[in-house]
Amino acid sequence: MTNLMKASQQAIAAVREARLAIRNGFDKPTAGMAPGMTQANMICLPREWAFDFLLYAQRNPQSCPVLDVIEAGGHETVLAEGADLRTDIPRYRVWERGELVDEITDARALWQQHPDLVTFLIGCSFTFETPLREAGIDVRHITDGCNVPMYKTNRLCRPAGRLEGELVVSMRPIPADKVADAVIISGRFPAVHGAPVHVGEPHLLGISDISRPDFGDPVRIEPGEIPVFWACGVTPQAAIMKSGVPFAISHAPGHMFITDVPDAAWQGA
Amino acid sequence: MTNLMKASQQAIAAVREARLAIRNGFDKPTAGMAPGMTQANMICLPREWAFDFLLYAQRNPQSCPVLDVIEAGGHETVLAEGADLRTDIPRYRVWERGELVDEITDARALWQQHPDLVTFLIGCSFTFETPLREAGIDVRHITDGCNVPMYKTNRLCRPAGRLEGELVVSMRPIPADKVADAVIISGRFPAVHGAPVHVGEPHLLGISDISRPDFGDPVRIEPGEIPVFWACGVTPQAAIMKSGVPFAISHAPGHMFITDVPDAAWQGA
Repeated sequence: MTNLMKASQQAIAAVREARLAIRNGFDKPTAGMAPGMTQANMICLPREWAFDFLLYAQRNPQSCPVLDVIEAGGHETVLAEGADLRTDIPRYRVWERGELVDEITDARALWQQHPDLVTFLIGCSFTFETPLREAGIDVRHITDGCNVPMYKTNRLCRPAGRLEGELVVSMRPIPADKVADAVIISGRFPAVHGAPVHVGEPHLLGISDISRPDFGDPVRIEPGEIPVFWACGVTPQAAIMKSGVPFAISHAPGHMFITDVPDAAWQGA
Repeated sequence: MTNLMKASQQAIAAVREARLAIRNGFDKPTAGMAPGMTQANMICLPREWAFDFLLYAQRNPQSCPVLDVIEAGGHETVLAEGADLRTDIPRYRVWERGELVDEITDARALWQQHPDLVTFLIGCSFTFETPLREAGIDVRHITDGCNVPMYKTNRLCRPAGRLEGELVVSMRPIPADKVADAVIISGRFPAVHGAPVHVGEPHLLGISDISRPDFGDPVRIEPGEIPVFWACGVTPQAAIMKSGVPFAISHAPGHMFITDVPDAAWQGA
């Protein structure tokens, strides 16, 4: 983390333009934006809950890989020079006592009202989508211009302190003859969810209707394609919901924070 | 961590015998005991300091690789069935306001006086000593039956909250024609300090006299041998000292907790 790979000048310019557009009101899912640059999930909790959350992440590293932790009150990250975490995410969710109470596009007022928020940036499976596409694997939600489908599962994470909750997964339909490639390619990125947790058989994960995701949009599954499931950085939001955390802010699923770090930095990490 | 590799029945029997001997009074460094089983550094802090410490570990993973975290008051670990962290370490150090105030062999009374201690088990470079020896590399402190030499360095860790401190390193003299092997073999174990942080030139790490380690014992360096330095799990103790933590318990350097997990479990992790 102290010696993070540097991106090219061009890539940095593109990512800054993307963050500026977001700060100025862009309000859509970020999949496919600034390709090759690391996107991150965000979750902020009061200082009093920060240890429980960091421990939850440590105990569930496949779903909650920590990329950076910003100490109480901060809104800057070593992963993105000049970025402001209060404005540079397209859409935020606001949580009270485990319930979603609001969606907003600017979180500065909330940061002022809650000066002790600790912010966690968590890896996102978007990181291995560029290598998947480079290997000739269609990433359906990018092709179709929608949000990735995400599902709560029947698998419980290992609890930590007052936090417990289900594993959330993202799903990409993959042609049967490309599943092995998709496993191998994503497996090279253990720091951003890595290889799939489940291939096919959604009902074994407790997913009764694949066309109705809990977060994001449904996508086409063509004949000959298998639904492949990866651990997802929305897992912390499921823990917020289940554990009744008094207050939290997260990104809205699919609406990520885009960093200055190339996806390649996490390969083999 | 949830699917930890299982050791053989024989290895488990050997490690239980070792822990029982320790519980019954064995009071020496543990290098070479129960070969092939993971040994761990321990550090316990009050609940109120636990977030800062877990964040310090997250920001300095090479020196502070977290193997398990035991929540406030606990003294059992998923890494060793039936073990008691209050008695199954040969020697403990007791810290007050950053100063070493006592060394003891049974910590039960302290656990009772401080019911909110959070305990961290941290990886130890002993894990790659068995593979080093299997590759024909002499591990001097095992051969000579003493403690590994450890040194504070001039390299600062990345701070976290109220915690700051120097990187501590362990040193093994390695014949010049074996240094590359030692790098490659230890590099296969990133979860337990991994490859060396420095090879030769101790003065560049701020070590003025290699024959006077800050922790452990000095070892012979034969002609043709290079001192090779690995990040060390005593690094948290340096942070305790520098940051004036009000109360802490640690293992005494070299006097480790021996788990039920084979060293091989951490290979490539």
